[in-house]
This record gives sequence, C-alpha cells and structure tokens, in this order.
Amino acid sequence: MIAGIETGGTKIICAVAEEATPSRLVEVIEFPTGAPDGAGERIRAFLGERGRRVDAVGVASFGPLDLDPSSPGRGRITATTKPGWAGTSLAELIGPHRSMTLVSDVTGAAIGESAYGAASGVSDVAYVTVGTGIGVGAILSGTPVSGVGHPEMGHLPVRRHPDDDFPGVCPFHGDCVEGLASGPAMAARWSRSTRALGADHARAVQIESSYLGQLLATVLYSLVPQRIVLGGGVLKIEGMLTGARAAMRREVNGALGAGHPSTEVDAFVVAPALGDHSGVLGALHLARNGAFARTDSLAAAG
Amino acid sequence: MIAGIETGGTKIICAVAEEATPSRLVEVIEFPTGAPDGAGERIRAFLGERGRRVDAVGVASFGPLDLDPSSPGRGRITATTKPGWAGTSLAELIGPHRSMTLVSDVTGAAIGESAYGAASGVSDVAYVTVGTGIGVGAILSGTPVSGVGHPEMGHLPVRRHPDDDFPGVCPFHGDCVEGLASGPAMAARWSRSTRALGADHARAVQIESSYLGQLLATVLYSLVPQRIVLGGGVLKIEGMLTGARAAMRREVNGALGAGHPSTEVDAFVVAPALGDHSGVLGALHLARNGAFARTDSLAAAG
Repeated sequence: MIAGIETGGTKIICAVAEEATPSRLVEVIEFPTGAPDGAGERIRAFLGERGRRVDAVGVASFGPLDLDPSSPGRGRITATTKPGWAGTSLAELIGPHRSMTLVSDVTGAAIGESAYGAASGVSDVAYVTVGTGIGVGAILSGTPVSGVGHPEMGHLPVRRHPDDDFPGVCPFHGDCVEGLASGPAMAARWSRSTRALGADHARAVQIESSYLGQLLATVLYSLVPQRIVLGGGVLKIEGMLTGARAAMRREVNGALGAGHPSTEVDAFVVAPALGDHSGVLGALHLARNGAFARTDSLAAAG
Repeated sequence: MIAGIETGGTKIICAVAEEATPSRLVEVIEFPTGAPDGAGERIRAFLGERGRRVDAVGVASFGPLDLDPSSPGRGRITATTKPGWAGTSLAELIGPHRSMTLVSDVTGAAIGESAYGAASGVSDVAYVTVGTGIGVGAILSGTPVSGVGHPEMGHLPVRRHPDDDFPGVCPFHGDCVEGLASGPAMAARWSRSTRALGADHARAVQIESSYLGQLLATVLYSLVPQRIVLGGGVLKIEGMLTGARAAMRREVNGALGAGHPSTEVDAFVVAPALGDHSGVLGALHLARNGAFARTDSLAAAG
C-alpha cells in the first residue's frame, strides 16, 4: 500500500490507498497537529496498523521546508513560528525503513487538484490558499516547483487599501499579505470570526479582495499558471471568490494581452474540487509517482 | 553553424558560433530594433551571409510572447506597446527552413548567465533586469520557466516610498514596479538622465532601492532561486546594487530562516558576468540544446 500524509498547521490527515488507485482512499484519519512527538506516534501507528505494509509515503507539510538535496537539514521544517516544530525531521515522524517524498502543504494541494481535481489536464497550475496562513504551490510544465525550495508567497509586500489602518499580524513584517489578509488577520481587524462579519461584511470583502487581487496578480506575473485554484477558509466568506476575481482583473488591467487565459477570470480562478483532501490526495499521488529518499538516510542526515 | 538572436526593445544582437563551442562568438552584429520589417531583413541577411549555413537558431525576444504550444499565435509577440511589433512572428523574422527555439529576452539572459556567467553551476536562478523595462527570467531545477508562458514581473504592484509622489509611467497601471522604477521612470521623476542625477543621487538611490527590494523579495518568495543575477542600465548607477541588496534584506527580514542562502545577500544578489551578451549567449546555448519548432510551421500557424 501507499500512504499520503498532510501535516498542516492545524490538523494532520493520513490516508492509505492501493498503489494502483491512489485517489481511492482505503482509510483516512485526521487529528489536531499538536506537538511533533505526539504527531509522530499517531502517524507511525496509523502506517503500521493491523499489520499493513506501507513502503512509500508522500508527505505534504507546512513549512518553510528545507528541500535542498545538498543540505544537511534536508527534509526538515526550518523557520516556523509554530511551537516545538522548528527543526523537525519529517522522516523521523514517518519512521524508518520507508521511502518518502516531501513537498510543501500547498505544493501537495496543487498536485492533488492537478491530478484529480479542479485543474486536471492543465500543465501549469498554481494553488493558492488563504486561511490560517497564506500559501502558494505551483506546477510548471507538469513538474512541481519543489526543487531546492518552494514558493513562500505569504510574505509578499502589498499596497494597503486606503480604508485599512489595521497594523497586520505577521511576526516578521506586520503588514505583508499574510499579515493583512489571512483568516487570523481578518478576525483581528474586525474583532470577530470571519463567519460572523455581520454589518461589516461588504467592507471586509472589499478590503480583503484588494489584497487577494494583488496576490493573484503576483502569482500570475511570476509563476505564469494557466489556472489558479483558490481555496482556504477565507474563501468560504460569501462573495469572496467573486471579489477576488474582480480585483485580480482590475489589478492586471489588460497588461498580458486580450488573449491571455486570465482574461476569462471565472475559468481562470476556480475553487478547489477536492475539499479538505487536496493535500492528502496530492501526497498519495506523490507516493506513487515521486522521487524518493529513504527515511533512514534523511533522519540520520540532520 | 548555430545562431543566437536577442531582439531587445532597443537593439537587436545577432551572433553565430560553431555548434561545439556556442560561447565562442564567430561573428556578432548589433543594430537598433526599429520596425519589424527592417529588422527581419537584417537578421535574415546576417544568417545567410557569405553563404554560411545556419540551421538552428535560438531567439531571446522582448514580449510578452505567446509560447503556448496549443495556441495559433505561438511564436508571436502579443500585447506590446512597441509600435508595429504587436503580433509579430519571430519565425518570420528568422526566415523559412530553420529550426527555432524562442524564449523571452530575460529568460535568454538567465540561460546565458547560468550556462557561462554569474550563475554557472546553480540549478535555480533568476535574472532580473532593470533598464528600459523591468523583466525577470528564471531557471528552476535546471529548466527555464518557459512552458506555455514566461514571467512578466514588470507589472508587480509595489508599495510606494513615502517620499515619492511620482505618478508612474506604465500605460496599464501607472505605478507598478516598471512604472515607478524602470530607467524611463527614474528619468521622468528626476527630469534628467539616470547618468546625471547630481544632487538628487542619494535620494534617487534610496527611493529606487525601496522598489527593487520589493521586486527582489517577490522574486525570492515566488520563484525560490538560489541566486539572483541583477542587471540592466539602472544598476550602473553608483550604489544601486548595494542599495537593492540592503532593501531586499530589510524586506525579507528573516522570514525564510537564518540558514536561507538569501541571508548572504552579497553572494545571493550578484551582477551579470557577460555584459551585454547574456541574452545572445543564452540564445546560442538554446540553439545547441533547445527543443525546436520549424520556423515554417510556426510562421504558417499564425
């Protein structure tokens, strides 16, 4: 069997499938991320449950990750602010005697949506999530952008909306796009849950759209996808997807030419099709198709 | 023999070399870009001069370019504001019965600097030019980002420097990074050539650095290069490279971790090593190694 594991900032999802049918989940569990020791125990128990034999594991993890094959820290989480997780080796979480392919959580989601979801058949895809954090994963010419590093676009500088004086929540920058437009940033700006914006709903969507428009335009200018899959908790706010699309179109303003696929904005920026399973399905896809390193050597290298 | 051609916004450079030694230029000419008809005549005359036989041609052209293999406009310049050039087929400029590989001018420069210059031996490279325009080319895991499209990062939204009220020169956006920080933008802001900033030199470098810092940080976050080659006319201003490096470091502010190669900013952001020939050498490298389409079929397709 093969396994896919998504270690997200909030929860971990583990799934197993037969190698021939990676998108048909035989069993799936999820649990809160917690501390790395407890997470590793639950992951390893799941992989060995009822005597099943899982040899190849795809992992889509929050980061930043060290993916550099020449680095002694390869396969580890680096500068995270998540308590206890900086320096964690994903290979150690998986346990010895297995093959592992590691990508960022959003790269995994891009792979999942590209293989089985809203971007199937498209060779150049970006997956953008706006939730607890803001992240971007990309596939260019069919290959994930995941060589020695992976995109870290949550920290993009953005222009402020003129009506927004919220200082931002990013510990590094204050008002980068994650600092101004992530779910926690919205909740702090409006002093309430993003599910209960009430009378401020229209203004909140307007301000948020201005930041997402800049983010999407920057993804378009830099990674040149043919489609953007836009997901995450913030996109569950009514009118948010429509607002983000319109803001991206205003932001680009025809600069890429009238024939560019981004001008068909409803077909260009789409919602994910795999719900909460984009990442874990991407991880399973990698488990079948990825280039593997042995967990033993990765854990020892660190 | 093989040929490399850089069709820049200002001038065109053509070079021929033996296939075994693409970086040793046998003959090179350059002339002002002018109109496409005249440019095509000079290019075709050069390729056929003194009876030499040039079969494979690499082309690095200003854009935006249609590179999509499935597009009827493949191999053409699309939404340029350069008079006469919108819709131009590069294959027609080269002439029939030849093989052509086409990339954007800055992708060509990235390939040249990666193969023979300031980024040789580095698998993940971005080339950033700040001159008449602002452009970014990228190589990820050894492969140019040039599948169905190419980066168009001149249009990035940027935060204004607080002391800058210049409206910007971009016809699409006014104050995108090209509108505020290209050579023509600087010349218009200070009402003089960037070679004669005089008493405004220090302020000009400070304001320009703030924009280049955002540009470089965005390149870093999105394309995750291991090195950035930063060239173009604006970088010839004294103190500009140092200012841009410092601004990128302030902009990132440690968000990618203490071990990230970008923290060694002098080694991470470097000047080009090939002078004016980055693009044409990249085009020659492509002429030897690229995936070719026949000029006949490309010209006919449009």
